[in-house]
Amino acid sequence: MPEKSTSALPTTPLSVVNVGLHGFVESLRAQGVEVTAVDWRPPSAPRLTHTRTGVDIEAANAEATARIAQGRPVLVGMGIARQTIPGYHDRLILHAGPPVSWERMCGPQRGAVMGALVHEGWAQDEGEAAELAASGEVEFAPCHHYHAVGPMAGIISPSMPVFIVRNETFGNLAYATQNEGLGRVLRYGAYGPDIYQRLRWMEDTLYPTLKTAVESIAGGIDLRALISQALHMGDEGHNRNRAGTSLFLRAVTPALMRTCPDRERAAEVFEFIERNDHFFLNLSMAAAKSTLEPAEGIAGATILTVMARNGTDFGIRMAGAPERWFVAPAGIVDGLYLPGYTAADANPDIGDSTVTETAGFGGFAMAAAPAIARFVGGTPEDALRATLEMYEICFAEHEHFTIPALNFRGTPLGIDVRRVMETGIRPRLNTGIAHREPGIGMVGAGVLPAPEACFVEAFAAIREW
Amino acid sequence: MPEKSTSALPTTPLSVVNVGLHGFVESLRAQGVEVTAVDWRPPSAPRLTHTRTGVDIEAANAEATARIAQGRPVLVGMGIARQTIPGYHDRLILHAGPPVSWERMCGPQRGAVMGALVHEGWAQDEGEAAELAASGEVEFAPCHHYHAVGPMAGIISPSMPVFIVRNETFGNLAYATQNEGLGRVLRYGAYGPDIYQRLRWMEDTLYPTLKTAVESIAGGIDLRALISQALHMGDEGHNRNRAGTSLFLRAVTPALMRTCPDRERAAEVFEFIERNDHFFLNLSMAAAKSTLEPAEGIAGATILTVMARNGTDFGIRMAGAPERWFVAPAGIVDGLYLPGYTAADANPDIGDSTVTETAGFGGFAMAAAPAIARFVGGTPEDALRATLEMYEICFAEHEHFTIPALNFRGTPLGIDVRRVMETGIRPRLNTGIAHREPGIGMVGAGVLPAPEACFVEAFAAIREW
Repeated sequence: MPEKSTSALPTTPLSVVNVGLHGFVESLRAQGVEVTAVDWRPPSAPRLTHTRTGVDIEAANAEATARIAQGRPVLVGMGIARQTIPGYHDRLILHAGPPVSWERMCGPQRGAVMGALVHEGWAQDEGEAAELAASGEVEFAPCHHYHAVGPMAGIISPSMPVFIVRNETFGNLAYATQNEGLGRVLRYGAYGPDIYQRLRWMEDTLYPTLKTAVESIAGGIDLRALISQALHMGDEGHNRNRAGTSLFLRAVTPALMRTCPDRERAAEVFEFIERNDHFFLNLSMAAAKSTLEPAEGIAGATILTVMARNGTDFGIRMAGAPERWFVAPAGIVDGLYLPGYTAADANPDIGDSTVTETAGFGGFAMAAAPAIARFVGGTPEDALRATLEMYEICFAEHEHFTIPALNFRGTPLGIDVRRVMETGIRPRLNTGIAHREPGIGMVGAGVLPAPEACFVEAFAAIREW
Repeated sequence: MPEKSTSALPTTPLSVVNVGLHGFVESLRAQGVEVTAVDWRPPSAPRLTHTRTGVDIEAANAEATARIAQGRPVLVGMGIARQTIPGYHDRLILHAGPPVSWERMCGPQRGAVMGALVHEGWAQDEGEAAELAASGEVEFAPCHHYHAVGPMAGIISPSMPVFIVRNETFGNLAYATQNEGLGRVLRYGAYGPDIYQRLRWMEDTLYPTLKTAVESIAGGIDLRALISQALHMGDEGHNRNRAGTSLFLRAVTPALMRTCPDRERAAEVFEFIERNDHFFLNLSMAAAKSTLEPAEGIAGATILTVMARNGTDFGIRMAGAPERWFVAPAGIVDGLYLPGYTAADANPDIGDSTVTETAGFGGFAMAAAPAIARFVGGTPEDALRATLEMYEICFAEHEHFTIPALNFRGTPLGIDVRRVMETGIRPRLNTGIAHREPGIGMVGAGVLPAPEACFVEAFAAIREW
């Protein structure tokens, strides 16, 4: 800029003293206000820097967050779940969140399971599907146990197509299904002929067409680059994916045109994606998952590598103890509701999509997405505040994902269980809301904090390491 | 949002008293800071509210800005300039900015004219083209005199394809060429075989393919809707059009796939647009032009309907006197330079693209586009400040274009010559920078204020109305 102000008016410069939360200082400075920051925290126990056995936690977390930030997720192909996901077997249904039995499963996840079983042809109708699900003949397991993630109910059944995302830095793979759209869709717990028809079209037309296009692109589609750009275009990569979906279409369409001999089918595939601004969500989730797994197993690391909900329980896992879930009851979402629905219809928090926050974007990058207020409620300043607050509980800032409105500051990366306990600040999530009964679907979207109890338990575990 | 803060930390609320410039109040409030605003301006002459003949200026400006805001620009078709633009004749070359003779024309505009004459086949080479241009056998006229707009040199020659944008609210049409990309392109004054080859491809392949696709879309492509969305996706619609270009591709591609029988040609057309994030600029400019013309001729209106530069002069026209140009020397851009270039290479400010600011977006909506700092220099807070300052000189706020980061406040709309004189604040522009010599091309991008002198003259004219 040529000059700070071309105004001929004298102005009174503001001068502010800020005590405590650093976020306010950043936000005022971003407005050009002179701020004297006083670093202050309420008295608390000194930070836990080493495990009982002497492992340096700070060094472990530095390694974990560096691995996450250095991950380069690339969409390299697509496949059918049972043939593609390692360890998949014929009677396996994957679901979002920590492990849960059919008996404890919430309404929308049950609805999605019932729909998937009918879709697979294992049951004639949803009633028969519920009996089969209760019979013990179907095995349920978290997506997260199979390098996969699923939004909302997060159901992956054997015949469903999945995206294959490779973290080129470390070589590991992650998987997610194709996004169906909003409203009456399986992942929100809806079932019925309309849902099955769409799922069939997604398997028979969308999948083979997209697979051929994607796999014809030398080097694949660099999802880190797409997410990084989308964060400069008003997305946060979880509940706002309009830019990500646009950029994905830009990346895939020339290949789609060249590889699909049927122009009308190419147009239908393009239109299906074009009409669903959330299409990119499943790709951003698989990208996030692929960046988190290389951090698993670093002794002493108190950074989360998993944060996921099944609509009954909320569960977390840490890099230093990657096999162990710490769970607490799933929270209630404070949201905006679709016409005809209220909070009384809402199922508790559900889905693996919090993998985006775990990987340093999504709700943690809401400052990049002020327009998301129209979808999840609140105001643009709430969105800014949410991000500023998340820096308080994160170990690092992302080197590849930046927020223009914060002068290109890196997004908050690496939820540190110690900091959550020290500050009392819980991870802020934004999410869609499913109807609590099976068979219905989406009723709204909103925000909520993660439950405290699982962090208390995780912190107790760290003290034993 | 469920709660204002989930923090357990006590925070000291900020309290600020602001005197004068309202922009600071808005920006602080947007950060959640309590502000007591004291409305204060330096003593000045009372605002001119009526013309000498008694016309109510406030009412006239209200009508002018309402017409601009209510305009609904839609891309309805394409055509060849000489057959499409009313009044076009065989030896006419349109250019950006106010009227200018060949003798006074700046280097890049001369370069673009020379290139266009070779491209048209009127000259064998650029030397012969310069002779022809100087001979008086070619007529030069501003694009603005023909319902058209052109970025940078803004050359439109008879065989060039143009977009046809209809303002559906008022029925008037506006025109702009297809955007060539960045770097060595005609509009930045470059000429040579590479330029002519691209222009030919744009006429022979891009144009007919795109025309067929666009004209197959019932109702056309609603550019107001695209610009409105793009402002929520980090664009400002002038020097950042990554979202607009993405959304345009989303809107046109299904038709492109269905109407283009040659898949490889469709892919090449898609890729040409996809690789140029500025492709949407010419569409946003034609959209802006179409919304401004219905405000022309409202007696007593002191709002600008034209603000344009030819690289020699900067010119403005007012709604109340739409035929009269007020001109001043074009300013020097403060910018970021491409490798190998410095300010010494820069031509003064050039192009009709300031039609976007005139219509209430572009540089005036920079608060919506913090990432633009990477292209035009400055910081995201400069971008925020630029928008806040422009409210001071604008008569209204746009009802269809909003800025999420300012809590969805309408963009500053309708540059009021009276307010520019009262406040001493000049319109802030952002722009590309052309090399000052003909034949070279783009050297950078930056920002600058409009020159004061043309506003002084316009204000003197208002006093005579």
